[in-house]
Amino acid sequence: MAEFSIIEEFCHGIGPDHAETKLGIGDDAAIIAVPAGMELAISADTMVSGVHFFADVNPAKLAHKILAVNLSDMAAMGAEPKWATLVLTIPEFDTDWLGAFSDSLKLNATRFKLQIIGGDTTQGPLNLSITIMGLLPQGQALCRSGAMRGDDVYVSHNVGDAALGLAVLRGEARLDGVFRDSVVSALEAPEPRLTLGQSLLGVASACLDISDGLIGDLGHICQQSRVSIDIDAGLIPLSDAYLQYLANGGNLDLALSGGDDYELAFTASSNRRDEIARIAEQLGISLTRVGSVVTKRQEAVSVSLEGVEYQLPTSFEHFS
Amino acid sequence: MAEFSIIEEFCHGIGPDHAETKLGIGDDAAIIAVPAGMELAISADTMVSGVHFFADVNPAKLAHKILAVNLSDMAAMGAEPKWATLVLTIPEFDTDWLGAFSDSLKLNATRFKLQIIGGDTTQGPLNLSITIMGLLPQGQALCRSGAMRGDDVYVSHNVGDAALGLAVLRGEARLDGVFRDSVVSALEAPEPRLTLGQSLLGVASACLDISDGLIGDLGHICQQSRVSIDIDAGLIPLSDAYLQYLANGGNLDLALSGGDDYELAFTASSNRRDEIARIAEQLGISLTRVGSVVTKRQEAVSVSLEGVEYQLPTSFEHFS
Repeated sequence: MAEFSIIEEFCHGIGPDHAETKLGIGDDAAIIAVPAGMELAISADTMVSGVHFFADVNPAKLAHKILAVNLSDMAAMGAEPKWATLVLTIPEFDTDWLGAFSDSLKLNATRFKLQIIGGDTTQGPLNLSITIMGLLPQGQALCRSGAMRGDDVYVSHNVGDAALGLAVLRGEARLDGVFRDSVVSALEAPEPRLTLGQSLLGVASACLDISDGLIGDLGHICQQSRVSIDIDAGLIPLSDAYLQYLANGGNLDLALSGGDDYELAFTASSNRRDEIARIAEQLGISLTRVGSVVTKRQEAVSVSLEGVEYQLPTSFEHFS
Repeated sequence: MAEFSIIEEFCHGIGPDHAETKLGIGDDAAIIAVPAGMELAISADTMVSGVHFFADVNPAKLAHKILAVNLSDMAAMGAEPKWATLVLTIPEFDTDWLGAFSDSLKLNATRFKLQIIGGDTTQGPLNLSITIMGLLPQGQALCRSGAMRGDDVYVSHNVGDAALGLAVLRGEARLDGVFRDSVVSALEAPEPRLTLGQSLLGVASACLDISDGLIGDLGHICQQSRVSIDIDAGLIPLSDAYLQYLANGGNLDLALSGGDDYELAFTASSNRRDEIARIAEQLGISLTRVGSVVTKRQEAVSVSLEGVEYQLPTSFEHFS
């Protein structure tokens, strides 16, 4: 089957046809109109076999995850995802594999109202990348550079489950039954916090999604906002599965430094506490205050547990 | 070296910082503003080792080519290229290779006024993809669907040199000296016809760039415009190098079906001939009338040479 017909067959009609889409897939380029008063947020993410997923990955789960990871970047900016281009390199034109991939892509793109407007399919070692685009009210984007001294630091839902899921799959940690399922699901099917991101517009001073680990990612806010952050490890929100892992002798490293959670970490002025509590309640998602923005000589994150400095592993292996 | 610092080091500050760029590389997403009255054209293209280039490819030439291929899609729509995201998977973090790649990317991005606003770098089998974005006056895009019965069919510059260059590199064809150099250069460093595409806004009825071969690509215009096209192979514009290849016993197959030329093929009403001649003269590029749009039962391209049907090879291997 020729490249062209593969794209036509597997990428055509994925997601809703937005009113702002003037020309969809099938020409030399797609054409979109950005409404007055809005800006376009754009982000690209790739996933490579053996680096971001196991080689025998389930194609349906892979399609879900690559979408979720990219949608999460839109969530982190407070943008409403609208369009994406998909570039897919696959070892062989296996119609079963492609069918399962495409069905899952279609299902999730529809769920998240994301239209695939371009792409390319080639034969080669498995490699996927998506460039995602979303709309934002002009000048409102949640950047990494806006954190101010005195701001609170928040984390959505809980962290560490995805890294724990990977440890379980690798046989490096043990959890049983429902706990095992829930951490594997956190790894394979993260939930992009889109509504939360959009609710934080005008509320958060800085925001990002946790892809490389809470502490590492907060370090980006420190660098770009030129501030320091103090984190109290005792406040980090943990799942019941993670608490079980702790009870079995685990520690907080995965929650602090493990990647792939795709929760949002954000800073906000302390006079926004009531508003943030209301957002949490409305969305039914916990937003936990885990530290504060300070100024120190070194623009970095410090972690303490019960008043004592918590030493993080210097390097931490995870699917990035 | 961590992924993050690789991107920072090699993709930061590539190309001009456009006034419409509200936030560049380094956050969860870039932010752009599309000016009033303009639309955004978006296209994605990938290149994979062994499929689109030889594994020992020169990184500087590779950077040039991936940009040229993507810029060519903007040319085909008549859009002015502005932004791109770059996703790069490389087998090892070889700073010499990356330095050469990045220098060439920077040089060419600057030349074509293209700003890299996002990206991702991962370790794995060599694979590159770019999603490119450009601006277009509202409703003016050169689509594949506008060709009308009676329109002329044009080709810019000449075709077949890139495929001939590949044949020469593979030892399947022989050319000496300057001719060899010029066809290899046509393959490695195609010239995106950006000014031509923009000049054709409001003039051409349909347009695309020739990536898969003249006849195959014109077939897309037939399908999307629901027309047929008659091509006179004797009118196809050929380079001196190609004429030498013909003199040595070659035929027209590479010119008709070879890919990778990235010239523009377009249709236009016959009452636009003077205007098109003026554009050719102003830009110093030949625009050759090679056939016409007709209506037949089968929406496809027919090729004749000296009044006799020209049989094309049914399948033609090329870097696609």
